[in-house]
Amino acid sequence: MLDFIAYAEEIGKRVEKFIYDVIKGEPQRIYEASLHYIKAGGKRLRPLVVVLASRIAGGDEEIAIPGAAAVEVLHTFTLVHDDIIDKDELRRGVPTVHKLWGVDMAIIAGDILFAYAYKCLLKALQLGVPSDRIAKSVEALTEAAITVAEGQALDMMLPEMKESGIENYIDMVSKKTAALFAYSAKIGSILANAPEELSSNLFNIMMNAGIAFQIRDDILGLVGDEKVLGKPVYSDLREGKMTILVIYALKNIDSEKKIKLLNTLGNRKARIEELKEAAKIILESGALEYSESLADMYANKAIELLNELKSADIEAFNMFKELIKFMIKRRY
Amino acid sequence: MLDFIAYAEEIGKRVEKFIYDVIKGEPQRIYEASLHYIKAGGKRLRPLVVVLASRIAGGDEEIAIPGAAAVEVLHTFTLVHDDIIDKDELRRGVPTVHKLWGVDMAIIAGDILFAYAYKCLLKALQLGVPSDRIAKSVEALTEAAITVAEGQALDMMLPEMKESGIENYIDMVSKKTAALFAYSAKIGSILANAPEELSSNLFNIMMNAGIAFQIRDDILGLVGDEKVLGKPVYSDLREGKMTILVIYALKNIDSEKKIKLLNTLGNRKARIEELKEAAKIILESGALEYSESLADMYANKAIELLNELKSADIEAFNMFKELIKFMIKRRY
Repeated sequence: MLDFIAYAEEIGKRVEKFIYDVIKGEPQRIYEASLHYIKAGGKRLRPLVVVLASRIAGGDEEIAIPGAAAVEVLHTFTLVHDDIIDKDELRRGVPTVHKLWGVDMAIIAGDILFAYAYKCLLKALQLGVPSDRIAKSVEALTEAAITVAEGQALDMMLPEMKESGIENYIDMVSKKTAALFAYSAKIGSILANAPEELSSNLFNIMMNAGIAFQIRDDILGLVGDEKVLGKPVYSDLREGKMTILVIYALKNIDSEKKIKLLNTLGNRKARIEELKEAAKIILESGALEYSESLADMYANKAIELLNELKSADIEAFNMFKELIKFMIKRRY
Repeated sequence: MLDFIAYAEEIGKRVEKFIYDVIKGEPQRIYEASLHYIKAGGKRLRPLVVVLASRIAGGDEEIAIPGAAAVEVLHTFTLVHDDIIDKDELRRGVPTVHKLWGVDMAIIAGDILFAYAYKCLLKALQLGVPSDRIAKSVEALTEAAITVAEGQALDMMLPEMKESGIENYIDMVSKKTAALFAYSAKIGSILANAPEELSSNLFNIMMNAGIAFQIRDDILGLVGDEKVLGKPVYSDLREGKMTILVIYALKNIDSEKKIKLLNTLGNRKARIEELKEAAKIILESGALEYSESLADMYANKAIELLNELKSADIEAFNMFKELIKFMIKRRY
């Protein structure tokens, strides 16, 4: 059986080549800015979801590559704009787009990537994918983009909500993070002409896995290794992000600790000692254990739903399962 | 014969209704921000181009409305992001999106509009437009979005180019402004299943008309009426925009005046007397006459190309001609 990580790398390389073939033009500066994160690396998990979903539905890799490139490019566009909003300075070990090219150029670099996501997907026409499937996959890409934008808006509004409950959090991450995984599965299955039911099952599986993935991301933001992550640890705390750990902690600590934590949260000038103290308060609340079990719950749901499916492509099916496990166990 | 202005209003109303039916969701704030400029009015010229191009190609209005809505929504998205970049505070007589909701929310409001442009266009599927035409019109919308973003990047880079010649200017406005008019014509003709040649002719006509339109816009930015325009006069000077008038003036004034003009250009704190003095220098250089004759040249080219076309829909044909004339003669 193929190792899914080796397979992800192989698909990743093909997707990168495809992206570099499609995304080019003048003026040079906007193209350099827009390809900056693609060149910096990335796990290419979403392209892998597209390809595996296509294979599970009986399609081949080839017709899935335009869809795989489309979701990676859409994802990259959201990173460029998110980094502006979050005032992040580092991503994938390199300075962020707005740090290097300025906010104005970064806005346009994101916009042009958004358009190129569609251009990538439309290349499937030239591979002989019938236009009714193209239209349906364009619809799915569009729904993904709308949902991610709604999720980003919710994320920005979460800190001001008086009661940032777990439900608000799950709603937000479903839209901001999980939806693109879910629509990646949908796009792959549409390109392979999957029946509606299979397509919708793959969508649901990835929605659950995507929520688990984001919870894991929140955990890594607090206890991860800066060098491996490619971005500073504690940046979530500095930005005042309502991560699952923060939400849990705020509900489960005494008022003295709560005041301390709230003083550090969102304070961009917080000293490292204050950040460490805030992290300690969060960890002592049991937030880590809670978050890990919540992530497990969603991942298990995803695997349970997956096990109900049948596919002739056993290899793809098994790699899909491995991928889901990776999404909650990853260290980077 | 129908007056094209009355017709534009009628189409505008149908397009607005269509847009309000499609663009809705949660959270409320992002939807309010994204619909802010649509609600504030606008001439709806691009939707009119889509509908008239469809009619000229033998299609009906109905199938053109999703395309008409799509280009208006795409246009609105570019306005939201451009206003952030230009630091504009007023648009269509109302405060800009980033002024009311902040830059971060305005970035996302633009992004979600971008996605909804596609969603509008895809509604043509439900009107029975075959999916091969949908795929082709999605391609055209995508090319439009890429070209507009390239144009916006060029616009940002123009002031730093040592020799901002007329050619650089025409290249920039072709992409930033004219392309969306041209692709509007293309989308209308694709939806009506026009032959390739007609589609490409309509594209070229609107490319020329669009350049004329932007030159007129530059002129109005210097000599227009603030109340009618809905935005402050001289804002182009304050922002240091390389308008056709500025480019012409810089090439045709003595070094003393050049120093004065360059001192005011891009100076956001310039006093009204300085702005008036700069405007006077530009007008005395003959830039207004030059710009008007350049706009006429492009508009005449558009009408010349139009006159070579034949259409069974004489009414649409004549309104298209009137529209082109309006695009260079407009006072607002």
